Amino acid sequence: MAAPLSGNALIAQSGGPTAVINAQAYGLIRELRNHKCIKHIYGADNGILGVLHEELFDLGNEHEAVLSGLQWTPAAAIGSCRYRVKEADYDRILSVFDAHDIRYFFYIGGNDSADTALQVFQLAQQKGYPIRVLGVMKTIDNDLVGTDHCPGYGSAAKYLATLVREAWLDAQAMATQHQVVLIEAMGRHAGWLAAAAAAARRTENDAPHAILLPERPLKMHRFLVHLEDLLARHKVVLLVVSEGIRDPNNQLYAELQRGGGSLRQDAFGHKQLGGAAAYLRDEIERHLSIQGTAIAPWWQGSLKDAVRARFNLPGTSQRNAGHFMSKTDRDEAVFLGEAAARFAVLEGASGYTVGFKPRENFQDPYEARPCLIDLKMVANQTRYLEDRFISADGYFVTQQFLDYVRPLLQGRVEIPEDEFGLPNYVKLKKFPLPKKLPPWHGS
Amino acid sequence: MAAPLSGNALIAQSGGPTAVINAQAYGLIRELRNHKCIKHIYGADNGILGVLHEELFDLGNEHEAVLSGLQWTPAAAIGSCRYRVKEADYDRILSVFDAHDIRYFFYIGGNDSADTALQVFQLAQQKGYPIRVLGVMKTIDNDLVGTDHCPGYGSAAKYLATLVREAWLDAQAMATQHQVVLIEAMGRHAGWLAAAAAAARRTENDAPHAILLPERPLKMHRFLVHLEDLLARHKVVLLVVSEGIRDPNNQLYAELQRGGGSLRQDAFGHKQLGGAAAYLRDEIERHLSIQGTAIAPWWQGSLKDAVRARFNLPGTSQRNAGHFMSKTDRDEAVFLGEAAARFAVLEGASGYTVGFKPRENFQDPYEARPCLIDLKMVANQTRYLEDRFISADGYFVTQQFLDYVRPLLQGRVEIPEDEFGLPNYVKLKKFPLPKKLPPWHGS
Repeated sequence: MAAPLSGNALIAQSGGPTAVINAQAYGLIRELRNHKCIKHIYGADNGILGVLHEELFDLGNEHEAVLSGLQWTPAAAIGSCRYRVKEADYDRILSVFDAHDIRYFFYIGGNDSADTALQVFQLAQQKGYPIRVLGVMKTIDNDLVGTDHCPGYGSAAKYLATLVREAWLDAQAMATQHQVVLIEAMGRHAGWLAAAAAAARRTENDAPHAILLPERPLKMHRFLVHLEDLLARHKVVLLVVSEGIRDPNNQLYAELQRGGGSLRQDAFGHKQLGGAAAYLRDEIERHLSIQGTAIAPWWQGSLKDAVRARFNLPGTSQRNAGHFMSKTDRDEAVFLGEAAARFAVLEGASGYTVGFKPRENFQDPYEARPCLIDLKMVANQTRYLEDRFISADGYFVTQQFLDYVRPLLQGRVEIPEDEFGLPNYVKLKKFPLPKKLPPWHGS
Repeated sequence: MAAPLSGNALIAQSGGPTAVINAQAYGLIRELRNHKCIKHIYGADNGILGVLHEELFDLGNEHEAVLSGLQWTPAAAIGSCRYRVKEADYDRILSVFDAHDIRYFFYIGGNDSADTALQVFQLAQQKGYPIRVLGVMKTIDNDLVGTDHCPGYGSAAKYLATLVREAWLDAQAMATQHQVVLIEAMGRHAGWLAAAAAAARRTENDAPHAILLPERPLKMHRFLVHLEDLLARHKVVLLVVSEGIRDPNNQLYAELQRGGGSLRQDAFGHKQLGGAAAYLRDEIERHLSIQGTAIAPWWQGSLKDAVRARFNLPGTSQRNAGHFMSKTDRDEAVFLGEAAARFAVLEGASGYTVGFKPRENFQDPYEARPCLIDLKMVANQTRYLEDRFISADGYFVTQQFLDYVRPLLQGRVEIPEDEFGLPNYVKLKKFPLPKKLPPWHGS
């Protein structure tokens, strides 16, 4: 037991939304309420930007039904942002914390927000401001260091794999000529999400027939030869393409698609991707047609039989598909929020982020055990899909990966429906706290 | 009661798959089994192509569990095609029917397959071949004449509206600068599916903020002015874009996106679309930026605040999202299949397609009543989204449309999950019938 620290708690969300980031906030709120040392539980509108602008609201004023609905409402209800906190901003953050007696700061986010939390933690230590700072891990990319997996990943993975299975039924139903179906998966740097699509495959004949990962540079010619081989065996081929695939010169195919180097960047220098599948579609149609140069020896078709290619770009739907979230992911999200609250309040943990202890053996009965991971380990680091999880030819995953991912996709969550039969998601009222400081104009 | 006609029944599926086209086949099978005059129930692999190639299989040999699973398995399990039957093919069709004693032909499809069914019906009459030919309506496009709505539409509509609601939560969560989110909806000729996204909107502030329909030519300049107005009010704007939108010269924006006129066509001359949202994304980013010429008077931003645009292209996922089908749609699909079987067997109906009686009043308690519609009325005709359903400015739907669509989206279907937590869809074994005729080499 740590010495009690009395005051208010602040919850903020950061980076790309997920299906269960609100379930994490719900877990935090539910557990924090059990502790008398927590006076109020506040939210910050749009993550750390809300802190800087002193745009806080009292989560205690929300209706119970709305708070409960956070368990099944996707996409950062408290409000998120992608803002790179500047050196000079940190003093302001502490001033806002001080003005509102914030003694607990929970930042639900990925590796960028782990860095923000780390800076806040260090400055508070340096200035002697008593506060407990914890990150709470989330990302559909599953690319955070030190954890077994990240809340949000299981739901995105379940949804993407389901889309792949359905697209494969669709493609088979119309399989009267050679066709390539591409599905572009999110995953800026790492291939975890794309890899999860492998769960859709039941037999060797089923899709996905290949998964193109950012971890393996894609040589176009080698890929086209591989694709010809797949087409000879399957007639209709379904490929999952990570948005982050690169050529051997480390150039993003998404950039090549938009004429090179024209992709927008966010405040962290991350490029807004989307376009890899469109690029491949064009390459496939150009090369694998009667006019192309890469026609395989088995090719018997005529002009009208040229290989057709089309792509689906589910885009942001992958990170907010609340209608089909994984129950395991959702339940773990609530549980991880509760655990984070207990770590901070009862054990005095600060300077960590909360994730799940890595499993040693994927054959053991599955159990997700919350653990503390040093923010320094996580900040700005990327955990790439490991070699043990990628097949030797680089175009698929291993059985070990399937064993890793299987438990994360289990179960469905029943969501109340509105009068149109659509998921009845909730919206926070966000009653603003009176501001106590002069306005902030950026640094 | 019609005179009894004894023999075998053949079920075929045609055109683009839907989430419930297999539920329609299930309804047919279930009801046909109740009638002693039906000896066997066959399926034709890949629609009418399977008939021409004499690739038939006996549905009676499938496991009961597999047949039952058709109720929740999306995308033509019997097999579909897009093949334009030629004049000379029809004799072959009757020969195959005769060889296998086919006395009932059920063709589940849209307006193209209604034409095929009509030709078969007329030729059989002319040749004195006793057969009952019925179409069974299906299409996610909802663009068939004479029916209230089409099985498959409700599920696609429910799914698309849900994606829109979720993408709107996602966009709001990150709403720290002006942004346009585009979601491209299927609908080659008609805007019914795109229009259904309106169900996602609860208040004036919610998405979708506009729906771009093929029924209203899109003047780019007028649209950009409208969009500026929306951006001034909402900061983040979500638009639903039908893949079939055209400019005032009737040119598809999807064609403009791919350099004009380069779109592939299927056997019916329908273009494979996809690209309208990408085209609009580029136009929006070009015009609504500091460098552009169309900056609105309210615009206060700097270069880095230029309006960003991104798009999701759910693509074929819209027509096969079994994981989130509408229960109403699914139940009606089974029911319509059963009704078609009864119309043919008990009433001797032939030369019709089976749909739902148009409602006279959308305020009355909802009831879907199967009816017969002359194949001549439906063949090759398109029912466009009606004027009464489109708002005066052309950018949204009317309350009447919302009343029309509401009952079609109701309810969810529980689907068994496999060991990966994914929907456990079934696959037919398709035990082939021995061929009795010489091979067919096309006409």
